[in-house]
Amino acid sequence: MYRTHTCGELRLSNVGTEVTLAGWVQRSRKMGSIVFVDLRDRYGITQLAFNDGINAELCEQASHLGREFVVQATGTVSERESKNKNIATGDIEIIVSKLTVLNASDTPPFTIEENSDGGDDLRMKYRYLDLRRECVRRNLELRHKFAFEVRRYLDEHGFLEVETPVLVNSTPEGARDFVVPSRMNPGQFYALPQSPQTLKQLLMVSGFDRYFQIVKCFRDEDLRADRQPEFTQIDCEMSFVEQEDIIQMFEGMSRHLFKTIKGIDVPEFPRMTWADAMKYYGSDKPDTRFDMRFVELMDVMKGYGFGVFDGAAYIGGICAKGAATYTRKQLDQLTEFVKRPQIGAKGMVYARIEADGSVKSSVDKFYPQEALQKLKTAMNAEAGDLILILSGDDAMRVRKQLCELRLEMGTQLGLRDKNKYSCLWVIDFPMYEWSDEEQRLMAMHHPFTSPKPEDIPLLDTDPAAVRANAYDMVINGVEVGGGSIRIHDAKLQQKIFEILGFTPEQAQAKFGFLMNAFKFGAPPHGGLAYGLDRFVSLFAGLDSIRDCIAFPKNNQGRDVMLGAPGVIDQKQLDELEISVKTQA
Amino acid sequence: MYRTHTCGELRLSNVGTEVTLAGWVQRSRKMGSIVFVDLRDRYGITQLAFNDGINAELCEQASHLGREFVVQATGTVSERESKNKNIATGDIEIIVSKLTVLNASDTPPFTIEENSDGGDDLRMKYRYLDLRRECVRRNLELRHKFAFEVRRYLDEHGFLEVETPVLVNSTPEGARDFVVPSRMNPGQFYALPQSPQTLKQLLMVSGFDRYFQIVKCFRDEDLRADRQPEFTQIDCEMSFVEQEDIIQMFEGMSRHLFKTIKGIDVPEFPRMTWADAMKYYGSDKPDTRFDMRFVELMDVMKGYGFGVFDGAAYIGGICAKGAATYTRKQLDQLTEFVKRPQIGAKGMVYARIEADGSVKSSVDKFYPQEALQKLKTAMNAEAGDLILILSGDDAMRVRKQLCELRLEMGTQLGLRDKNKYSCLWVIDFPMYEWSDEEQRLMAMHHPFTSPKPEDIPLLDTDPAAVRANAYDMVINGVEVGGGSIRIHDAKLQQKIFEILGFTPEQAQAKFGFLMNAFKFGAPPHGGLAYGLDRFVSLFAGLDSIRDCIAFPKNNQGRDVMLGAPGVIDQKQLDELEISVKTQA
Repeated sequence: MYRTHTCGELRLSNVGTEVTLAGWVQRSRKMGSIVFVDLRDRYGITQLAFNDGINAELCEQASHLGREFVVQATGTVSERESKNKNIATGDIEIIVSKLTVLNASDTPPFTIEENSDGGDDLRMKYRYLDLRRECVRRNLELRHKFAFEVRRYLDEHGFLEVETPVLVNSTPEGARDFVVPSRMNPGQFYALPQSPQTLKQLLMVSGFDRYFQIVKCFRDEDLRADRQPEFTQIDCEMSFVEQEDIIQMFEGMSRHLFKTIKGIDVPEFPRMTWADAMKYYGSDKPDTRFDMRFVELMDVMKGYGFGVFDGAAYIGGICAKGAATYTRKQLDQLTEFVKRPQIGAKGMVYARIEADGSVKSSVDKFYPQEALQKLKTAMNAEAGDLILILSGDDAMRVRKQLCELRLEMGTQLGLRDKNKYSCLWVIDFPMYEWSDEEQRLMAMHHPFTSPKPEDIPLLDTDPAAVRANAYDMVINGVEVGGGSIRIHDAKLQQKIFEILGFTPEQAQAKFGFLMNAFKFGAPPHGGLAYGLDRFVSLFAGLDSIRDCIAFPKNNQGRDVMLGAPGVIDQKQLDELEISVKTQA
Repeated sequence: MYRTHTCGELRLSNVGTEVTLAGWVQRSRKMGSIVFVDLRDRYGITQLAFNDGINAELCEQASHLGREFVVQATGTVSERESKNKNIATGDIEIIVSKLTVLNASDTPPFTIEENSDGGDDLRMKYRYLDLRRECVRRNLELRHKFAFEVRRYLDEHGFLEVETPVLVNSTPEGARDFVVPSRMNPGQFYALPQSPQTLKQLLMVSGFDRYFQIVKCFRDEDLRADRQPEFTQIDCEMSFVEQEDIIQMFEGMSRHLFKTIKGIDVPEFPRMTWADAMKYYGSDKPDTRFDMRFVELMDVMKGYGFGVFDGAAYIGGICAKGAATYTRKQLDQLTEFVKRPQIGAKGMVYARIEADGSVKSSVDKFYPQEALQKLKTAMNAEAGDLILILSGDDAMRVRKQLCELRLEMGTQLGLRDKNKYSCLWVIDFPMYEWSDEEQRLMAMHHPFTSPKPEDIPLLDTDPAAVRANAYDMVINGVEVGGGSIRIHDAKLQQKIFEILGFTPEQAQAKFGFLMNAFKFGAPPHGGLAYGLDRFVSLFAGLDSIRDCIAFPKNNQGRDVMLGAPGVIDQKQLDELEISVKTQA
């Protein structure tokens, strides 16, 4: 071992001990006849002192240490004259008697500090240096602890972690698969799993009863800011359970995580139907850290000759407490915000509640004060509040616009504190949603989701109205996990495939192995899956999942550090019996 | 929840309680007026009793339950008249008052019993039924526990589990890569990692200090019986360590696993140099559950006019204690065994030690009794022992043949008890081995392995003689893990690449990111990786790793249950801008 202690553990109680440390030079400075070197490792920073008067040669050597040199230093722990209260080892320093440079370092391309001077691209190219920054490393330490506590909880509750294969078959539903040409079976391809959904259902058929897996999944999608082509799921499934059992088990897990990792006691999670979530928040993953619920204003605002509202299919408002102080400029900016193409509103109406209780709106010429007072009442607004109203001819679209506006107001008013957590279950999702692109009903969750028993008759008459035994866990407006009770009856499964537009042959070709399995005694079962990256990001207070992934890809799907993907040898292509159309 | 208890937990103390169980019908039988049904779940088997005299309708219903039906039964726990000592619930039965069939089952294609009547292919096709067999499920339960205890030990020792990417770049050394065409970067490919070797080294450069990961790795090799295209590694790396530190840490982990999982206290692992392992066992992974070491007999057996030995470059023998009773037929079979093409010996000489101490050999006409007595002494043989001798003109080849013979004798004499464990470290591996195929030196471990410091001068003069700081953990003749101290010096790394025949440009193109990283302060580091599948198989006493993998592939690399790999749509190929040469 190159060290007797780490750079994070020495204290006053160690004074007088001879120790050996090893680590990286964070910085060095000369003060009079003494050279101080901050030595860093994963565990902390310890100050090394070299006194010119005691050992001139050693001091000279120390003065030539560059940033990020790897050194080993032996010396005596000594109490510092001027203590540093900001670090755990700040009471002591090492009076060094022996110094060995284990490895020199070129000057790193950016500073290894909390606030680095390196841009995103540079830090990704040298990710191994970026990972030296404490703020980045901390996220990965949190991730380790998070995964460990997940496993501990599930193990204690009788779950078995079972590894399912990565080289599987291509599935037609869902996103695009990554595929892997098979050399031993020319012309054929494996697919990388988008999730182990069907395999975990087979494990339930096998009687595994309680399964989980922390597992890499893959989707070949065009990447948005917060998507990665490979991501990690906490995948879980249970047999002989109903929705309530799953909700209890996994609410318990989340509480265990909040308690052991964040030290927070989270109260029981409220439950909200999907219909209510859409009605009051315009989102199936409402951020409930703040209220500001939608109020429908069709009755209140129609009939005053304001054409925009009179012709609207939906009018909805939110009340921003205490925001009546917003200036005209701020309000114009909000209007611009909702009119951006990504949101797409045509305009925004606002109304301020003045100190005297009177209402001042952007549509005063259409609405008498009396009408505006009704609005105030409907919105439950008080003096000092600001009411913001959107409308349009597609209720769902307006709700989504209003959702964006609400979130923006929450952010502006400081209501979305990253250290505050608001958890809930969203339940009773619809089974299907209409796809304009595909011109058919699509499974909202996935095709194995069970309808609510009382809605099964609707499958024949009004499938779009059927609700599913499906649930999402939402924290701070982030869907951290979701799942459903599955269909365990082969006939019902076949019917669902039919509604989704599969011919029996297609269903058999693609899911035959699952439907066949269901013939041999499938138990009632259900489960859920969490996005680990997202869940950890939430705990770490990060804006992007990238920051809790050791080696993430950019949004061209590239690992710029490894230079992946890359060109492969013709020999490899020949062995695989494939050819590429584009020479990269 | 469909049950109040599992099928494994009810005891005499529960008698009188009303319970609900759910599970699979293992078997049913009618005895007089009573129908007995064995109900099975993951936790055990509980007997259900239906009495015709009490409830004729229910009894009639029960008599129609088929094998593997999924049922829910409510009833009262009752003491059995004839107890079954073979199962934990054997003292009680459930007098059923309510029975619900949750799912019927077709007759399964093979019996779900310890000894199934299903052949390998059939059981793989219906793997979800095969997994219902207790003997199969137990292996996966063991695997779960094993992985959990690995994580517990490493977490307690400050290791962080860091996930490294699955979509990486193709590497030139080692086995063939599986590749993944990139849609977003046409003509380019990701590779699936053969191991996270370079990434874990980068994590050391990042200062992660103690890393591990239980991770899927991939090799596109032609499959032998005990290989899978995807397999799982316990991958570990540490910084600021020497070989001894790694050996201590991971010997500790193995002892922890033996203790917590098998309840066995394993003594300190002996260490054997690679040279000794080859000399005494003809293998770098000797099975040391039994002795039977090789004795070199060049001095003893040469010069008696027996041409085979007189012309041999190596003559070696083993002494099989107590095997003098082997018949001529058994000895002939052993000769056939070593002459099989897979082993390739030309013949075998044997010598029995008779009760009176005289030696009777197959080459008596060349060797006087006096010479044979010298052989007996050299072999340290006693009355009742059998000496077996092989020879040839390539010492290494003969040793490997003798190794096979030794293992066969160990098996025949019952010396390879699966419940007995013999662990050791094999150390001081050579850096390189000559490849006849490639006509160059190849890295024996991998190109990042550090030479022993004292052997570094030999790199220039006699690279084949250089020993590495490399070590394997061997248990019962199985290499469960191996690793090395790595090179952390960019210049030395470059030199090793040169010896391996890479031009500087090739080395830069393929490993540039690692060599660049080494310029920025790489710490001394080393590690090792275990084959989880193999380690678990050993603990489970299995002959094949397949039996501890939930969904293994066959040796054409196919998952016959999923039907993977398979043909993909032309649309997918078009999006990837590749074409296949063979229509599957």
